[in-house]
Amino acid sequence: MEEMKVNPYDVKGEVDYNKLISEFGIKPINKKLLERIKSIAGEIHPYLRREIFFAHRDLEKVLDAYEKGEKFFLYTGVAPSGPIHLGHYSIWSFAKWLQDKFDVELWFQFTDDEKFLHKDMTYEEIQEWTKDNMRDVIAINFNPKKTHFLINTKHAGIIYPEAIKVAKKITFSTIKAAFGFTDSENIGSIFYTAMQTVPCFLPNIINNENKYCLIPMGVDQDPHFRVSRDVVEKLGHKKPSIIHAKFMSPLTGTAGKSSSSNSNKTILMTDDAKTVKRKINKYAFSGGEDTVEEHRKKGGNVEVDVACQWLKYFEEDDKKLSEIYNKYSKGELLSGEVKKIMIKKINAVLSEHQKRRLNADKQIDKFIFKS
Amino acid sequence: MEEMKVNPYDVKGEVDYNKLISEFGIKPINKKLLERIKSIAGEIHPYLRREIFFAHRDLEKVLDAYEKGEKFFLYTGVAPSGPIHLGHYSIWSFAKWLQDKFDVELWFQFTDDEKFLHKDMTYEEIQEWTKDNMRDVIAINFNPKKTHFLINTKHAGIIYPEAIKVAKKITFSTIKAAFGFTDSENIGSIFYTAMQTVPCFLPNIINNENKYCLIPMGVDQDPHFRVSRDVVEKLGHKKPSIIHAKFMSPLTGTAGKSSSSNSNKTILMTDDAKTVKRKINKYAFSGGEDTVEEHRKKGGNVEVDVACQWLKYFEEDDKKLSEIYNKYSKGELLSGEVKKIMIKKINAVLSEHQKRRLNADKQIDKFIFKS
Repeated sequence: MEEMKVNPYDVKGEVDYNKLISEFGIKPINKKLLERIKSIAGEIHPYLRREIFFAHRDLEKVLDAYEKGEKFFLYTGVAPSGPIHLGHYSIWSFAKWLQDKFDVELWFQFTDDEKFLHKDMTYEEIQEWTKDNMRDVIAINFNPKKTHFLINTKHAGIIYPEAIKVAKKITFSTIKAAFGFTDSENIGSIFYTAMQTVPCFLPNIINNENKYCLIPMGVDQDPHFRVSRDVVEKLGHKKPSIIHAKFMSPLTGTAGKSSSSNSNKTILMTDDAKTVKRKINKYAFSGGEDTVEEHRKKGGNVEVDVACQWLKYFEEDDKKLSEIYNKYSKGELLSGEVKKIMIKKINAVLSEHQKRRLNADKQIDKFIFKS
Repeated sequence: MEEMKVNPYDVKGEVDYNKLISEFGIKPINKKLLERIKSIAGEIHPYLRREIFFAHRDLEKVLDAYEKGEKFFLYTGVAPSGPIHLGHYSIWSFAKWLQDKFDVELWFQFTDDEKFLHKDMTYEEIQEWTKDNMRDVIAINFNPKKTHFLINTKHAGIIYPEAIKVAKKITFSTIKAAFGFTDSENIGSIFYTAMQTVPCFLPNIINNENKYCLIPMGVDQDPHFRVSRDVVEKLGHKKPSIIHAKFMSPLTGTAGKSSSSNSNKTILMTDDAKTVKRKINKYAFSGGEDTVEEHRKKGGNVEVDVACQWLKYFEEDDKKLSEIYNKYSKGELLSGEVKKIMIKKINAVLSEHQKRRLNADKQIDKFIFKS
């Protein structure tokens, strides 16, 4: 097994989340915190109960302020270089839940510069993906009145002047350590983290406010903010708070995270029902035994069975989920049967998403921030 | 004597321009080239005759195209962090001559980001200097219809998207070698050269043209373009041509270049007649002997006498200049007398400049490029 490596540009090996918590210096989300969220939101999102969102930085501060009547804003984003998959969807649907429950603004950053700088793709290809990814973000059904798209190249006029203030306080040594870069990295990539930092405080500059910022995101993005949280504070802004998600595993069940670079390893938001069925039946790693007889006798392994694991994202009912896990462990449910449940669940999600996605183009202009 | 060092962030030691020509791989401006310029412009600017503009890159290409009826555009700029002095003035007045004689557009970049990133100054201080420096650029009397100001932070919306295309093709290793940076350099400074490269081709993108770009500038800026000329070509644009100026020596005659960081070592464009007189009489390094008797006997050294050297910039008449040099060498003219000539010349220049400068604020808006 490869050694674990988790940063925005490389996720490798079996991810040990407890080890990440201590390496990154982030905090696990404990019961007390869950109770506080429940008391405000009226419920706890399944992703919180199931430790999909498992860690945080300074989440308490955001809740303290909120309880005093002070709203925060949300900030998340995507690096557009390919189609959107269920891994993205899971984080954004949680962000939508936060937006709805806390009634807050969301600033959504499209880091087209980042992907252009890191990938062997043309500027035009990245722009195409940026537009395509916007459709999926809109299809999440965020509140258009409270959601603002920032596209790094398009909004460079407002982002770059703030980014240089961040950049002035970050040396290449720090970047090297945080992202594993070498001297042969291009100078755009080296600068880039400053662009990703700006939305932590830009809405406050625009609105002349001093709200907290809460960032729901995959834990691989943490190095950006580990580097820049102190810088943000030195610039006179509040440090952003963060809530970290685990990676949705690839269909094939190997280590790492879901990625569009091999579309057979994930489910895309644009996959049709047949494709979903084919991919899951063909590629989803099974935790069952080789034969039905053996499976009935020995039972299946819930922890490695991708269908079982992915159901954490799509079966909201705790009771139903634990029933499935129980039966699968005892061999009462076969791998194929769990896959069938998952296919149905996912196709229901995708069908709704795809309907909204068809109407997205008309709404893009409403979502893009006008400076 | 310190070892010679010439880059945009450090000019040290006695500058050996022949050595620079071979180290930088630039070409001296020869007689043939001067004749070509004369045949187009109708005259040769004194700074060309006197080798103040002493070297170039691909100047022939610009002239070849011009002779075929194809106009180029000019690009120069300033890094605003202090008042404008005669060193800046000399380069810009030459740029104005080029604009007038060749009837071409000038794109003038204010690299406020660069200075903010490199200096221990606040963003607001740099913005104040940017505005102040604009007044001096306008007072040069550039054609307002053919001169466009680009301010890096203000125009980041059009510059940054192109800068990342440049940045993608430049590694930190290259930057290290060109500018003498280390890992403790901030990431904004590391990226910055990409921002300075963009105006080489941005006007062509804006106007959908493919003109040559000619950059009149101090030779210390050459490393930026040495790094990026090939990159510009790889991006499908014409490599910029450059015409390089020597440094106007500090008043005190030590090695290096004129700089505003010690305003006693230079003459500022806002100095009044009395201040000019005082500074020159007090600080201008003299090439004469200690006593009048000795000076009359041995004569003065034109090469180290700053008044004599600076007259190259302000006495347009070759005959008069060589007369002064002759007399000074023979001891017929005293240092004080040459200083007096220089004071008069400079005050005439400043008086005109300052009159125009008073009217500059009204014109700023006309000069700033509207994207």
